[in-house]
Amino acid sequence: MIGIDHKRLEAQLTFFREIDKLKQVFRQTLLLDGSRVENDAEHSWHLAMMVLTFIDYAPTPDMDIAKVLKLVILHDLVEIDAGDVYTYDDFDAEEKRQKEQACADRVFNILPKDQADELMTLWHEYEAKETPEALFAGAMDKLQPFLHNYYVDHNSWRLHDVPKKRVIEKMSIIKKGAPKLWELTMQLINEADAAGLFADSVDTTIPKAG
Amino acid sequence: MIGIDHKRLEAQLTFFREIDKLKQVFRQTLLLDGSRVENDAEHSWHLAMMVLTFIDYAPTPDMDIAKVLKLVILHDLVEIDAGDVYTYDDFDAEEKRQKEQACADRVFNILPKDQADELMTLWHEYEAKETPEALFAGAMDKLQPFLHNYYVDHNSWRLHDVPKKRVIEKMSIIKKGAPKLWELTMQLINEADAAGLFADSVDTTIPKAG
Repeated sequence: MIGIDHKRLEAQLTFFREIDKLKQVFRQTLLLDGSRVENDAEHSWHLAMMVLTFIDYAPTPDMDIAKVLKLVILHDLVEIDAGDVYTYDDFDAEEKRQKEQACADRVFNILPKDQADELMTLWHEYEAKETPEALFAGAMDKLQPFLHNYYVDHNSWRLHDVPKKRVIEKMSIIKKGAPKLWELTMQLINEADAAGLFADSVDTTIPKAG
Repeated sequence: MIGIDHKRLEAQLTFFREIDKLKQVFRQTLLLDGSRVENDAEHSWHLAMMVLTFIDYAPTPDMDIAKVLKLVILHDLVEIDAGDVYTYDDFDAEEKRQKEQACADRVFNILPKDQADELMTLWHEYEAKETPEALFAGAMDKLQPFLHNYYVDHNSWRLHDVPKKRVIEKMSIIKKGAPKLWELTMQLINEADAAGLFADSVDTTIPKAG
């Protein structure tokens, strides 16, 4: 092909095929109709739509939207090998980091070196949670499954023995990443508590619909 | 909440819930492992990853990446009510347009007016296929299911009675939207033909694996 670097294109096509596996990495989060759990590809798409529509609540008005979109779209690719770890599970953070880094090394490096480096740099920025873009992306990543749990009311927190304090702790990135949404988050956490949704909610005896 | 427009936030949360339905709009395209068809949310995510990695083949070097990402992420929201129409089906284009516009009117207008207008404008830009961003997004939207059909080799074209000429016709947006990928596309179409994958391929008797 004229003007085409065949080897480069072939690597990109291999990567295109490899990442299809993200559609089979399942999460704990139920769809809002309660019918099944969602997968990482759907989750990442939902975050991208949140970036478009919750942008009012960004930590700075001059955020680089292209970068935030890239961060949410690629942030879970490292779970192709490592799998999704449930936020509220007890897990060894260092072991998780190593597994995800190994997956990033394998999957990103399918691409030509310049593109592999770009994705690795973006993923490390996402993980470091230091830039406004990474903080906002991280806040959306926590808010989305929280809202699903809240709206579906499927006892996920109680089933996994998650107390209110732990939810507040996990959601605390929203304070930095989307500070204007923190009051909403606390309001919904308190409502969920009143409805008996946490492991330590006082009224855990309310019968659940459905 | 201080500094928050409650009505605005409520509309955004309603929209967040509404668009979850895109995860249940199924397409004809099989996942690359052949296990099931994919849905519009997964498809849209895959296009966004293609934007990041196939950007070498953009029609102009100075494309607005944030805009292309927005276009691919939202382009199928209009299928929440209208459903996915198989590219190769005979369909009434005007009827499809009307159904999708009605869905856009309903779904986008859940959002505050300024955001609804922004999404409508973006979707119309995508549909018009005039800007480099819309052409590139449109090319990815055709290339992704084509590559799935090619790699999965699941007889989709033969099952749907699609001749080679019709595939070439449908893929032709790639000429404008990602011109450097046109030669690849034609090469793969010819290979698919040689493998007997089209309704009018000469050798349609080759037994398929799996």
